[in-house]
Amino acid sequence: MATDQDAEAGPRLNGRTAHSERVLASLLLPAAAMIREKGIVGASVEDLVNAVGVSKGTLYYHIRTKEGLLYWIHESVTDEGYARWERAIEETEGAPATMTLERMIEEHCAVIHEYRDCVAVISEEMKYLPPDLQHEIRVRRAQYQGLLESVLARGMKSGEFARLPQRLTASMMIGTLNSMYRWYDPAGPQTPEELAAMAKKLLLRGLRG
Amino acid sequence: MATDQDAEAGPRLNGRTAHSERVLASLLLPAAAMIREKGIVGASVEDLVNAVGVSKGTLYYHIRTKEGLLYWIHESVTDEGYARWERAIEETEGAPATMTLERMIEEHCAVIHEYRDCVAVISEEMKYLPPDLQHEIRVRRAQYQGLLESVLARGMKSGEFARLPQRLTASMMIGTLNSMYRWYDPAGPQTPEELAAMAKKLLLRGLRG
Repeated sequence: MATDQDAEAGPRLNGRTAHSERVLASLLLPAAAMIREKGIVGASVEDLVNAVGVSKGTLYYHIRTKEGLLYWIHESVTDEGYARWERAIEETEGAPATMTLERMIEEHCAVIHEYRDCVAVISEEMKYLPPDLQHEIRVRRAQYQGLLESVLARGMKSGEFARLPQRLTASMMIGTLNSMYRWYDPAGPQTPEELAAMAKKLLLRGLRG
Repeated sequence: MATDQDAEAGPRLNGRTAHSERVLASLLLPAAAMIREKGIVGASVEDLVNAVGVSKGTLYYHIRTKEGLLYWIHESVTDEGYARWERAIEETEGAPATMTLERMIEEHCAVIHEYRDCVAVISEEMKYLPPDLQHEIRVRRAQYQGLLESVLARGMKSGEFARLPQRLTASMMIGTLNSMYRWYDPAGPQTPEELAAMAKKLLLRGLRG
């Protein structure tokens, strides 16, 4: 696995087949858990091969570079989170903003439950990517936060929420939700639904007008 | 600067003089900023020397190992945070728990303002420490969180706060407060007071009984 920053970023971004998608999906969580534990610099190719349970050749074929692996983890989890938030917004169109926001908190907690170690990796390891990829990541995160800001704006306009600085509020809320990766254990005792219930209790009342 | 894990942890923990304390204090923020940017593995001794503006010999004399530097950054910022929270609790003894909690949020935001890059480093880089130091850090963090849990318990007993799971609530609140390092800029436009006002608005209402 090369670490050349000029190498194609990401695991075979062009021309993925259904088979390679399946292989990649099966690598995602164990690779993220290993990188979370040892860091992208600390985790050797050997560590990664052992963690994901495929041969070095297979890993190289699908992943190529450590930078590509990192970027792909980011892409996978943010695409999932973005799609879930977009759907939550669409499906609650015309409903009170509070209802949309409840759904978004539930979806975010479900992502933390399913992808906890990926969230850890994208929170702690992105500094090891080259600047152009870091820039793309900042753009993608701003889009995600933009969805939240738009719902906050809707709730402020309707009078459901107090008039608060939207960006600051959204940053704090996403900080609360993302930081759960630090202490939440998908194996229990809390379910993702209990996690979401608690987050809604803590965050939604503070917004009320 | 050696990286031997058996080396004495931390920068001359025993027998520090007033002079060495001053030198160490002057190294703290620039060293943390460099480690935040490049990671403890990515930042070379050369990078650190350039960042802190002392000679390699001086850096080695005061810091010794990269592990020691990391641990000392953790120690400095958690000692500061712990002392501020203890004082807030002492000085509001007998007052409503809400008042104590307001003070604690203000103090935490002041620590983020003053030590932002240290908070980033202790949030992202501790996996590079040997297991015994990681254990000490977990103990220290549990003590810090314990102060918050005790104030939550007091407010639940008095009826100021709803009866919520204390540990879960405290974990989420600390997650909100710590994650501010990701987007808060000490150079502006928000002041630490505005940061605290926003955090109080978002977090305190959610606790009400």
